[in-house]
Amino acid sequence: LQKLGKADETKDAAFEEWVTNFHKQLAEGTKLQRDLRAYLAAVKAMHESSKRLQECLVDMYEMEWYGKDEVNSIAEDTDLLWTDFHQKLVDHALISMDTYLGQFPDIKARIAKRDRKLVDYDSARHHYASLQKGKKKDDVKVAKPVSLLEKAAPGWAQGILSAHHVAQTNLSRSQAEEELGRAQKVFDEINEDLQEELPSLWNSRVGFYVNTFQSVAGLEEKFHREMGKLSLNLNDVLDKLEEQKAGKVSQKT
Amino acid sequence: LQKLGKADETKDAAFEEWVTNFHKQLAEGTKLQRDLRAYLAAVKAMHESSKRLQECLVDMYEMEWYGKDEVNSIAEDTDLLWTDFHQKLVDHALISMDTYLGQFPDIKARIAKRDRKLVDYDSARHHYASLQKGKKKDDVKVAKPVSLLEKAAPGWAQGILSAHHVAQTNLSRSQAEEELGRAQKVFDEINEDLQEELPSLWNSRVGFYVNTFQSVAGLEEKFHREMGKLSLNLNDVLDKLEEQKAGKVSQKT
Repeated sequence: LQKLGKADETKDAAFEEWVTNFHKQLAEGTKLQRDLRAYLAAVKAMHESSKRLQECLVDMYEMEWYGKDEVNSIAEDTDLLWTDFHQKLVDHALISMDTYLGQFPDIKARIAKRDRKLVDYDSARHHYASLQKGKKKDDVKVAKPVSLLEKAAPGWAQGILSAHHVAQTNLSRSQAEEELGRAQKVFDEINEDLQEELPSLWNSRVGFYVNTFQSVAGLEEKFHREMGKLSLNLNDVLDKLEEQKAGKVSQKT
Repeated sequence: LQKLGKADETKDAAFEEWVTNFHKQLAEGTKLQRDLRAYLAAVKAMHESSKRLQECLVDMYEMEWYGKDEVNSIAEDTDLLWTDFHQKLVDHALISMDTYLGQFPDIKARIAKRDRKLVDYDSARHHYASLQKGKKKDDVKVAKPVSLLEKAAPGWAQGILSAHHVAQTNLSRSQAEEELGRAQKVFDEINEDLQEELPSLWNSRVGFYVNTFQSVAGLEEKFHREMGKLSLNLNDVLDKLEEQKAGKVSQKT
């Protein structure tokens, strides 16, 4: 089998590299999915705790303090911004992540099937090859002195025995050849598909990583921009509150 | 005691309002501290998970892909920005929070001490008042017909008995007066301090809330501004990577 499979083994080394890439790609994708989910959970947790912190301000903020309404609406807008950020991360990054990773199980199953079909193909080829070797031996025998059985049989029977043997061997050989052809066809079909799909899947990773991280970066950029504005607004309101209180204190004294 | 304490009870109603404010202020501050700590923990958690997400990108990013170094340095800058944000929140908001809340236990203890000193003062006043009432009765007795004891005693002894009783009563009364003076002084001292400190502590809450939330809002604003820039940079690098890959594909075909 080792010698017979020489050409295929060379072919397999290239294929094995694609399989190695496939597993690397699957591992990277799975890790990315896990880390993205953890990031989303952290976004949710930070949303909750930032909301509670702002509720402290809203609750302490007294009716007659400057900007009571602004403080309320800044807190509401901050809450909305966090909700929107989290939801868009789910929609744009996590869901496309799931679609991307959804391709892998089917291909993984077909890689395993290809391995099994390669074993079938190799065994069919081995069988056929051993019969071919037998035929060569028979051809040699025909030229050689007759066997003990042939020697023991009467002269008229010797040709019949030999012809029967040759006919049987020819039948097995053609069956094995047919079997080999079928096994090769099944293997070639799945092999050709994977030879096309694995490189294409592998190349798709770049676009996928770009899309995922651009989604995240884009949503973060928008989130940070809007959030920064709200922080500035809150700062302004609190400046005015301080002025209001300073005014009151100087009126009192 | 009810009638005697009338003036002080009116005074106490105002004081009780300051004590109510004190407890409200302490509760608000304690809640704020707890929520600020939870927020800081969430910042740390989001820092960690955002770091792991960016490490995915750094690890997958291959040597020959456009902007490998930029991606590395964006990840490093993001990490630094998170660390700096968290540290500054601790330094500017959490530590001043601890200082602010550090004033409360001492004042709380002094409110309790004032309560005890008020009880002492009231009991001294009660004692003195009951002796005063006794004196008035004695004065009435002197004008009234003599007692049975005085009637039974010989004539020369009657004046001595009466003088002894008056001298003893006068001694108790001056001791009680002294005691009352001391109790009042102790109470007045602690009371006057608190009458000044409680309103001043209460008024300080506004400036404290303003400072705390301005610190947080200011640090957030800077954080979001810088973070938004890094997100934009990453987006640009990934745009170029996509162009590079598109170029490669068209070269191949």
